Amino acid sequence: MHSTAAAASTFPRFAIAPLDRAATAGLQRKIDQKTKPRGALGRLEDLALQLGLMQDTLTPQIRKPHVLVCAGDHGAAKAGVSAFPQEVTWQMVENFLAGGAAINAFSRQAGLALVVADAGVAHDFGPRAGLVDAKVDAGGTANYLEGPAMSEAQCAAAMANGARLARDIAAAGCNVLAFGEMGIGNTAAASLLTHCLTGLPLADCVGRGTGLDDAGLERKRALLELALAAWPERPPISHLPLAEGEVGRGSPHLGKAEAGTNALRVLARFGGFEIAMLAGAMLAAAEARMTLLIDGFIVTSALLVAATISPPILDYCIYAHCSNEAGHRLQLDWLGGKPLLDLGLRLGEGTGAALALPLLNAACAFMNEMASFESAGVSEEA
Amino acid sequence: MHSTAAAASTFPRFAIAPLDRAATAGLQRKIDQKTKPRGALGRLEDLALQLGLMQDTLTPQIRKPHVLVCAGDHGAAKAGVSAFPQEVTWQMVENFLAGGAAINAFSRQAGLALVVADAGVAHDFGPRAGLVDAKVDAGGTANYLEGPAMSEAQCAAAMANGARLARDIAAAGCNVLAFGEMGIGNTAAASLLTHCLTGLPLADCVGRGTGLDDAGLERKRALLELALAAWPERPPISHLPLAEGEVGRGSPHLGKAEAGTNALRVLARFGGFEIAMLAGAMLAAAEARMTLLIDGFIVTSALLVAATISPPILDYCIYAHCSNEAGHRLQLDWLGGKPLLDLGLRLGEGTGAALALPLLNAACAFMNEMASFESAGVSEEA
Repeated sequence: MHSTAAAASTFPRFAIAPLDRAATAGLQRKIDQKTKPRGALGRLEDLALQLGLMQDTLTPQIRKPHVLVCAGDHGAAKAGVSAFPQEVTWQMVENFLAGGAAINAFSRQAGLALVVADAGVAHDFGPRAGLVDAKVDAGGTANYLEGPAMSEAQCAAAMANGARLARDIAAAGCNVLAFGEMGIGNTAAASLLTHCLTGLPLADCVGRGTGLDDAGLERKRALLELALAAWPERPPISHLPLAEGEVGRGSPHLGKAEAGTNALRVLARFGGFEIAMLAGAMLAAAEARMTLLIDGFIVTSALLVAATISPPILDYCIYAHCSNEAGHRLQLDWLGGKPLLDLGLRLGEGTGAALALPLLNAACAFMNEMASFESAGVSEEA
Repeated sequence: MHSTAAAASTFPRFAIAPLDRAATAGLQRKIDQKTKPRGALGRLEDLALQLGLMQDTLTPQIRKPHVLVCAGDHGAAKAGVSAFPQEVTWQMVENFLAGGAAINAFSRQAGLALVVADAGVAHDFGPRAGLVDAKVDAGGTANYLEGPAMSEAQCAAAMANGARLARDIAAAGCNVLAFGEMGIGNTAAASLLTHCLTGLPLADCVGRGTGLDDAGLERKRALLELALAAWPERPPISHLPLAEGEVGRGSPHLGKAEAGTNALRVLARFGGFEIAMLAGAMLAAAEARMTLLIDGFIVTSALLVAATISPPILDYCIYAHCSNEAGHRLQLDWLGGKPLLDLGLRLGEGTGAALALPLLNAACAFMNEMASFESAGVSEEA
């Protein structure tokens, strides 16, 4: 059922071009000629360079930025992996549609267009303005403690839904796509994905989610150990874990195709529909050369899937913030990603990404609006 | 000349009310009722609480935010404490007026009104639209390697200029005032102030400024040791330095009035006119219950002066970012200040403050726009 051949034929394919770095010198020259000491804008200079390379221009711009929030329900939520009841997923989707959630407030503030998608929430919303119907299963995923969360066909469908939506958003003129999620129980799924894709110890990948106490955290860890044990035929971990204190992507020790196929099997076993949809959207967004603005722990678990399938996707990623959810720092270190913000957020919904967007705007503003030493008649360093 | 009596009579006085924290419980209740797990918005929740207390309301708002950039020249700049020639100060003021500096780009982006003041630049700008003439001395400060940078009367005048401007800005309806500066050589002055006000070792307070190399940094350190030695009658340090690893304000070991008077003497000896003007503006801003958005190393040195004169000012401060200039982290630890951003900036001009403003807007947005569990019909934690 989970054979390599089947997976290879069923799942959508993506052709992501690694970033051409030929323009680096020209961009750096422009940055260094701005009226400021060299390097004095710190991370904003790196951002400007990265955006210039992604857009292949000396005048990068943020155009029609969007945040895609995918929601889905998890069969395992009923087993007690979250502090909140499962119905909160659909209630929060209603909150998004009514404009009352944190991501609504922050998106409005940042000038970010919000797209909410039902990837597989266990609730019938009916046809609704402002909600993208991408429901793969009306009941949410199955419980991975008992079997696969979704079939391969469902996993492929969720990814294809995400890819289609990302392409539509790109076609509307957007060049920065942020990602967010909602799904009671999805930190648990993200923990399992992170462990299986990176080899980081499962216990280190499990955190308090929406706010478990110590006993709840222990229970969650134990349940996720059971979830792993319930799948004895799971594929080997595709990457060698990082050595102690090391930062940056673990080296793949399986062939690329095999690693990608394994990632899809892991995604189908544990993943939420929202995570699969996000992974597909990310792959299509990078294929379309959009900038991917990566939010927290769950969004990064979708990126781990996408990056195992197609490593060049990482050239298009900007890491918005470091979540307070324990495993996120580990994911970021593993990916070699440096977050822009560190504000102790642990909410999801894409809130960290929305808060980081003004920094991307600022990076473009200094590239496009600041004078050079020559144009302003300012003396250079002695 | 520097007698306590003279200082006490000459310098402007400020009456800053410590923040009344009675509204804390009500604000926290409102924050906790928002549709998110408790604490899930991290530092933004602290910000919302702090803004609510400062504004004495459950619905804090950022109204007409301004950034005040004060510029001044330093006699010691000619002694070689900076990588850039002194003329860059006036050239950068021209750049501010023409709209081509980083602070122009970031202020426009953030919706921040920019006020540029000549506190004592060694250049004749003539009457100019968009430039506040607050020049205390047409030649900039004197060289503190040879004597006091300014007289007590000049120091008091610069502070009074800053206070007057801050009151005007408050009267225009602004409730958040950010601070920035421009002055070749002013990291050196800030290092001396920081050492004299906190007791932190001088060498630790000295950094590369606009980009000194190792030899330049050694030369700067040696010159600043000479500057200290050239003032044998300097007052004792007003605070006990923090112990190793300790964070938070050093305890005063002098009486409040004596500490304040000493701070003014130190300011007159080493300070730039822009630093004195900023200190006065900060004191008046806190007196008017505005929120003070604190930028980098030099602005924080002005705050050290202001806070030694009137400790309750710290209740009104938000620390925008941690500068890459070495001494800034030490200042922040000493003040017990937690910066919002850490992006490796070391430019000054108020750029870090401008970049942090969207986070203040976001804190207000979630307080005012997010639904509560009850209003949105979302289930609470089990």
